[in-house]
Amino acid sequence: MSRAEAAEAFARCSNAGRWGAEDELGTLNLITPDVRRRAAALVVEGVSVSLGSDIDTVQRPLNPRPAWHVMHLNEGGLPYATGDSVHVDIHGVDTHLDALGHVYLDGQGYNGRRQNEVVTHDGLRANSIHAMRHGIFTRGVLLDVAAALAVPWLDEDHVVTRADLEAAERHAGVTAEAGDAVVVHTGLERRAGERDTGEIVARAGLGLEAVSWLYDRDVAVFAGDCVDRLPPSDSGLELPLHQIGIAATGLALLDWPRLTDLLRALERYGRSTFLLTAAPLRIPGGTGSPVNPIATF
Amino acid sequence: MSRAEAAEAFARCSNAGRWGAEDELGTLNLITPDVRRRAAALVVEGVSVSLGSDIDTVQRPLNPRPAWHVMHLNEGGLPYATGDSVHVDIHGVDTHLDALGHVYLDGQGYNGRRQNEVVTHDGLRANSIHAMRHGIFTRGVLLDVAAALAVPWLDEDHVVTRADLEAAERHAGVTAEAGDAVVVHTGLERRAGERDTGEIVARAGLGLEAVSWLYDRDVAVFAGDCVDRLPPSDSGLELPLHQIGIAATGLALLDWPRLTDLLRALERYGRSTFLLTAAPLRIPGGTGSPVNPIATF
Amino acid sequence: MSRAEAAEAFARCSNAGRWGAEDELGTLNLITPDVRRRAAALVVEGVSVSLGSDIDTVQRPLNPRPAWHVMHLNEGGLPYATGDSVHVDIHGVDTHLDALGHVYLDGQGYNGRRQNEVVTHDGLRANSIHAMRHGIFTRGVLLDVAAALAVPWLDEDHVVTRADLEAAERHAGVTAEAGDAVVVHTGLERRAGERDTGEIVARAGLGLEAVSWLYDRDVAVFAGDCVDRLPPSDSGLELPLHQIGIAATGLALLDWPRLTDLLRALERYGRSTFLLTAAPLRIPGGTGSPVNPIATF
Amino acid sequence: MSRAEAAEAFARCSNAGRWGAEDELGTLNLITPDVRRRAAALVVEGVSVSLGSDIDTVQRPLNPRPAWHVMHLNEGGLPYATGDSVHVDIHGVDTHLDALGHVYLDGQGYNGRRQNEVVTHDGLRANSIHAMRHGIFTRGVLLDVAAALAVPWLDEDHVVTRADLEAAERHAGVTAEAGDAVVVHTGLERRAGERDTGEIVARAGLGLEAVSWLYDRDVAVFAGDCVDRLPPSDSGLELPLHQIGIAATGLALLDWPRLTDLLRALERYGRSTFLLTAAPLRIPGGTGSPVNPIATF
Repeated sequence: MSRAEAAEAFARCSNAGRWGAEDELGTLNLITPDVRRRAAALVVEGVSVSLGSDIDTVQRPLNPRPAWHVMHLNEGGLPYATGDSVHVDIHGVDTHLDALGHVYLDGQGYNGRRQNEVVTHDGLRANSIHAMRHGIFTRGVLLDVAAALAVPWLDEDHVVTRADLEAAERHAGVTAEAGDAVVVHTGLERRAGERDTGEIVARAGLGLEAVSWLYDRDVAVFAGDCVDRLPPSDSGLELPLHQIGIAATGLALLDWPRLTDLLRALERYGRSTFLLTAAPLRIPGGTGSPVNPIATF
Repeated sequence: MSRAEAAEAFARCSNAGRWGAEDELGTLNLITPDVRRRAAALVVEGVSVSLGSDIDTVQRPLNPRPAWHVMHLNEGGLPYATGDSVHVDIHGVDTHLDALGHVYLDGQGYNGRRQNEVVTHDGLRANSIHAMRHGIFTRGVLLDVAAALAVPWLDEDHVVTRADLEAAERHAGVTAEAGDAVVVHTGLERRAGERDTGEIVARAGLGLEAVSWLYDRDVAVFAGDCVDRLPPSDSGLELPLHQIGIAATGLALLDWPRLTDLLRALERYGRSTFLLTAAPLRIPGGTGSPVNPIATF
Repeated sequence: MSRAEAAEAFARCSNAGRWGAEDELGTLNLITPDVRRRAAALVVEGVSVSLGSDIDTVQRPLNPRPAWHVMHLNEGGLPYATGDSVHVDIHGVDTHLDALGHVYLDGQGYNGRRQNEVVTHDGLRANSIHAMRHGIFTRGVLLDVAAALAVPWLDEDHVVTRADLEAAERHAGVTAEAGDAVVVHTGLERRAGERDTGEIVARAGLGLEAVSWLYDRDVAVFAGDCVDRLPPSDSGLELPLHQIGIAATGLALLDWPRLTDLLRALERYGRSTFLLTAAPLRIPGGTGSPVNPIATF
Repeated sequence: MSRAEAAEAFARCSNAGRWGAEDELGTLNLITPDVRRRAAALVVEGVSVSLGSDIDTVQRPLNPRPAWHVMHLNEGGLPYATGDSVHVDIHGVDTHLDALGHVYLDGQGYNGRRQNEVVTHDGLRANSIHAMRHGIFTRGVLLDVAAALAVPWLDEDHVVTRADLEAAERHAGVTAEAGDAVVVHTGLERRAGERDTGEIVARAGLGLEAVSWLYDRDVAVFAGDCVDRLPPSDSGLELPLHQIGIAATGLALLDWPRLTDLLRALERYGRSTFLLTAAPLRIPGGTGSPVNPIATF
């Protein structure tokens, strides 16, 4: 893809100005009071399931800087208390929520803000994770692309298309609506389970077409066992979900959720929708936050 | 208080064995499917408000080891991505959820587990924050003790009693029930706002009587702008909320929530209850986790 | 100063190519075997004195990200061992040695290497502190500018000149020679001691003229209770010692040494020279290292 | 070995009281001005060689918590400066100097200080690395046990004895004297080089007899490619070099130096002694410090 084509895609999927020049919330604006009320009404079985990963202290190719978890000697000097600290690389393999200021296309970020104006040594001046501090509370919809295509997992060079997502909608009998959190399943955890290493670098992911579909449908949150197809297949637009979805659309991206427990619960209850809640740590100027998203049925 | 009296209080408020010898969830067991369903039904206005604090990078007496937030040079080496890392002391002033294995009385912790068997260099062998990984989803009830006593804030040597909590119930017109999250307001943030430093070391807090009341009422989660009265007034039982509430009752303690925005919202909507959600990071063996609790109305 | 004048100063003080196109050692090349031998011969009294600062865990204007020092629970799980970890911001107030790749003028660094080619997310590709891994072992010469000018400390807007340094040489009765470590004293610690805060932001420092003198004299190491005059007085060349001294000359800069103990020892022994040793941690790709320089008499 | 026998060994090798009740320096007291002067006189070739390891960011069995090295975005906000931070576990595989308060036998540490009195949440109250802040400056003596026994490396269950050390003395033609730094070579790096992993957990090391010999000879510093025999072979006294050498004798232990470059230099110059310098970071209350020891010939 040429640079001009990438810029065109950016313009087409942009929400710049849609919620005002000051906006830093992006598609989370689509989670209206009404969306929240309807999401709350999805709580029927009354059961919660985590979509988060364990903080990962094991070094692997995708986790070059594993988290430190250190047990302290006597919390606060009190012999009857025990404490600890954690040191976490936010955009590693631990489940996290990306800030809108995390990524750019040709220096252009969400809502007309430029990378060189926003990104500073002290943190993001705008579009930081702090803008999302009141959290995500919306309907989650599982789009099981692997199931819709009747494969255990998508091949590593599969680029998820608009047609794939709509096939998954039909398979679920649900239509993604404005304000939804779309959870795409490509079978990655199943595929990783078959491997020795449990680590998969090359993997299926969304192409520009799918990213446009998220924009067209006014999806508020993307989560999935995939993000962009990796490694990037198009040097003109390496990461369409990040560089168009986040930077142009202002899409909230929940990166690296774990779906195995969610799928099991959805199957058990015969459902494909649920209430999704997630709240980032309030890191002023942060480019993201580790997070433990919860599905409640 | 003598050591024997403290042990007696421990025994009286103990939930050891109540949910089986293997239990690590404590009072979160009281958040049943029915409790979750009723909590979800509290979402009426469809608005969410954070009870979390900003990750605090400023050193002060109560924050001796301020968080580090470091902006990285090019996330993953990509010039169009920006990333960062955080290093956080869990039991500092940032809003956090305590694990049940965080604290002990005379070496005795939740569900019959002893400190010297549970606490290791690699993390807690049991009662860690990981046990709470599916999060908190329950009714939050504001017990505004300051308002009930018609004071802007409780004096720093005020020990909150059973009567205080029940006065706050009457003031709210609500009764704390099994599985509830009780949010006690003593006016601390208002008091801090009047001070130059914004830092208050000596402060009102719960006494043993109030802790017993939480046990009697089967409260699942305690949150508040106070914990124990500080500094400890009784060397025989320094921190009753921690050493009895957590270690005997197995109470989930949300430490250091910020209540100002919550109070404003409750007043705006003329409510005293709401849906409270909070999900700790999944830190294996962790003694707690930073968390951003959310009230949804 | 104009950009062209700054570039001219850079060219005039440059050691690019002097020790070959591959060189990453800079002025440490001037510490020849003969220089080391003569430096060793300065050990007469047989006493060592540290010029290092205590790792500083207190937050202040010049130490915005104070070091973390955390005591661990049982080192390696052994009850009879105690361990800890440290998290240090290298270019903070703790005594440190700068790598030659730490700083640039208009993107130009030591030995013809450009900032955008050398500086990466994974570390410096060249001119890193690792190049200095065999350490500093040379003659240290105290140039006490404050004493030479007969003032307790230099005024905060004093820009140290060539004449100041030569006055200090005469005062000491010593001439700075090729390979020497020059330790400039401006009285900063004395001045700080008179202040409440102990923290001095505005301070005397070297101007371009003094930096040229270091180049002319083939000084190998600069250390002092000053660096550049701060805050920068010339926006065309903010930090001549850093941007010319390090980036053009390839000068090894020991930043933030503490001189009080050194001065006391020099006075006690009636000396102005000594053996200076310092060895950076071997941080691959690092832009510097905390270090504890030692003077031996 | 019985507990009583271990205590007896402790008493026999103890330097408690030898340098006064307040002493925290231990065997570094043996590095007298005269020792320093004679060590300085060893500088003949005028060449320095590092004995330090690269800060290790790779996770392996012996490095479970690898160091973090993070490149920052613009040091201090200056576009022409680049900076970084390091987070290091002190008693990992990076070359470090142990504080005397790092280890204990039955709660007993150097100079009559007890573990439970010295070790606190805030750091060591005594015997911390800060006591060694003026560094090590002494004669280093290579005792090449592998060469003396004419093997490429010692077998992993070899316990180094008094006879081994004296054989190595004869092989070198040197006698270890009071105040010396003894560098023992067992061939570990050579052995590791033959392995795929480069990681050797089971390894030769010093037994109690060798530790007694260090005491008898008034050795000031131990360094080597071995410490205690690992894993411990005697549960009654797991780590004699640590639990007797450090805790009773007050021996300065340089842990994990790298010897390959040193051996090469010693061979090149036909020497077995050299000037050894090492200076710990001044970590108040620290149990040790990463360090880069330097041999100068």
